Amino acid sequence: MQPIEFYRDEFINYLEKKVQTKEPHNLYEPIDYILGLGGKRLRPVLALLTTELFEGDYKNALDAALAIEVFHNFSLVHDDIMDDAPLRRGKVTVHEKWDINTGILSGDAMLINSYQYFEGYSDATFKELVQLFSKTAIEVCEGQQYDVDFETRDDVTIPEYLKMIEYKTAVLVAAAMKMGAIIAGGSKENQNLVYEFGRNLGIAFQLQDDYLDAFGDPETFGKQVGGDIIENKKTFLYLKALELSSAAERETLLHLYSIAPSDPTEKIEAIKTVFEQSSSVNMTKKEIEGYTQRAFECLKQLNLPEERKEILKIFGENLMQRTV
Amino acid sequence: MQPIEFYRDEFINYLEKKVQTKEPHNLYEPIDYILGLGGKRLRPVLALLTTELFEGDYKNALDAALAIEVFHNFSLVHDDIMDDAPLRRGKVTVHEKWDINTGILSGDAMLINSYQYFEGYSDATFKELVQLFSKTAIEVCEGQQYDVDFETRDDVTIPEYLKMIEYKTAVLVAAAMKMGAIIAGGSKENQNLVYEFGRNLGIAFQLQDDYLDAFGDPETFGKQVGGDIIENKKTFLYLKALELSSAAERETLLHLYSIAPSDPTEKIEAIKTVFEQSSSVNMTKKEIEGYTQRAFECLKQLNLPEERKEILKIFGENLMQRTV
Repeated sequence: MQPIEFYRDEFINYLEKKVQTKEPHNLYEPIDYILGLGGKRLRPVLALLTTELFEGDYKNALDAALAIEVFHNFSLVHDDIMDDAPLRRGKVTVHEKWDINTGILSGDAMLINSYQYFEGYSDATFKELVQLFSKTAIEVCEGQQYDVDFETRDDVTIPEYLKMIEYKTAVLVAAAMKMGAIIAGGSKENQNLVYEFGRNLGIAFQLQDDYLDAFGDPETFGKQVGGDIIENKKTFLYLKALELSSAAERETLLHLYSIAPSDPTEKIEAIKTVFEQSSSVNMTKKEIEGYTQRAFECLKQLNLPEERKEILKIFGENLMQRTV
Repeated sequence: MQPIEFYRDEFINYLEKKVQTKEPHNLYEPIDYILGLGGKRLRPVLALLTTELFEGDYKNALDAALAIEVFHNFSLVHDDIMDDAPLRRGKVTVHEKWDINTGILSGDAMLINSYQYFEGYSDATFKELVQLFSKTAIEVCEGQQYDVDFETRDDVTIPEYLKMIEYKTAVLVAAAMKMGAIIAGGSKENQNLVYEFGRNLGIAFQLQDDYLDAFGDPETFGKQVGGDIIENKKTFLYLKALELSSAAERETLLHLYSIAPSDPTEKIEAIKTVFEQSSSVNMTKKEIEGYTQRAFECLKQLNLPEERKEILKIFGENLMQRTV
């Protein structure tokens, strides 16, 4: 096995070779643009890595990795329209650079293209991959719908929230890894363990994102610290704080989450204090810890030589090291 | 073989059984709504009909027919957003009844669902159907992009226009029929002939729609007669008129296509006069005739007993009888 950077570079080379602007230009240029904005390429790298973990050749997983990455970017393009987001990875979003109609149609084409990238696999593998892909894709849509629904609901429960982030974020990470296992011919049991590793790590990662959004280091956290609080976003920190608060704290929190001051500094500080005093911060850290451990538990159960699993362990540790 | 109404009824029963609102409600209710608005169900009926034509059981084609119909409705939902259309089949469009974000996300889910409907087919058939489906779906997107591009271009050629309507309308009809042939185990040659029948008939149908939009009987034509002219839409009639006009007629036409009077009656009449005097009307009728005949030529070449082909011939004749 190679270091992670190797797989990332190989994937980026493949992406650049395979995704090229063609006619009609106005349909394909935005696709080229969004795929060129970079990002961590977390999902495709995990697909390649998992293939090698099961002693397959990562080259056989490049098409599946590409499908996953193009699908992920499709979901970003459509989500950015729905969220009215001006920026993505520090650059203008597709619907801002072109228009909403372009964002819709280029996104649609990306979703279809992602299915086409599987066409190089043999009949049986093709069906297995495409079925997993469709199941995952529909869950991502359902996750996005729950996220939208939660904005206007005031009775969101913690299990509902966890299901939302599982669908919106974790299942695609899990599917990317399971595809690697399928392509390499891993056993059903190992396929499922690697899926569960990805799913738990994905949830832990998203919960950590919630935590860092409020308590991260502005120097190293990619986004604006306090962004979720400014937008009154019902994160795990918020829902847990509501659950654990005294009546008075609860009222403060609900009030603070109903205002939008032009200078949000005070609001952010006040809410962070409630998050801390209500023990929500501690509980969130525990939850992150719990999902991370569950992920590593799955890794332990994988029926593979210990030294092969090392790279996934390091990968998971690096990913979660940002925090707690 | 059964009469066409039989296949339509069977398809509608199947659709109602298979497509049901589930959670999250806000994602699936709009899907239920658009699929319940009716329509001719032309594409799924053709899929069932073609399966029986090749001595297959139409029941085996119900899933493919459903995939095609759900995909078609996905494209209507997203197109209606792009066209800012208030009505579809006489009812409010999805993005008007809910909002644009709902239209985008429910549309995405429909596109993914349509892939899932193929999952009941065996590995080899699954791959064959899904590949044809993806190729067709991406062409439909490209057709829509060309249609959008043409709005702001003043140098659209007739071959470009024909390619646009082929992609936007005809290929899905053709694919629906080819899927029936694939499912019934028809020979490659017959599969391609039936595809060509559908493609040519689809183009003829769309050209006829252009013609009827200007010259149809307001009593029987479903849409507002003159609608394309009011919207300055570059139809076949318009492009052919530009090509055939004298310099003076050309100037009149370009002028009329640059104005938007509050009462369009005079504009419509003036343009129809140019269409007739420039021989564009005759040429359009000839073009419709040509594509229709090419479709029936393919039917003739199909390696099947004559009496089996009769139902497709009747179907095609009925479809084209609206005009010329």
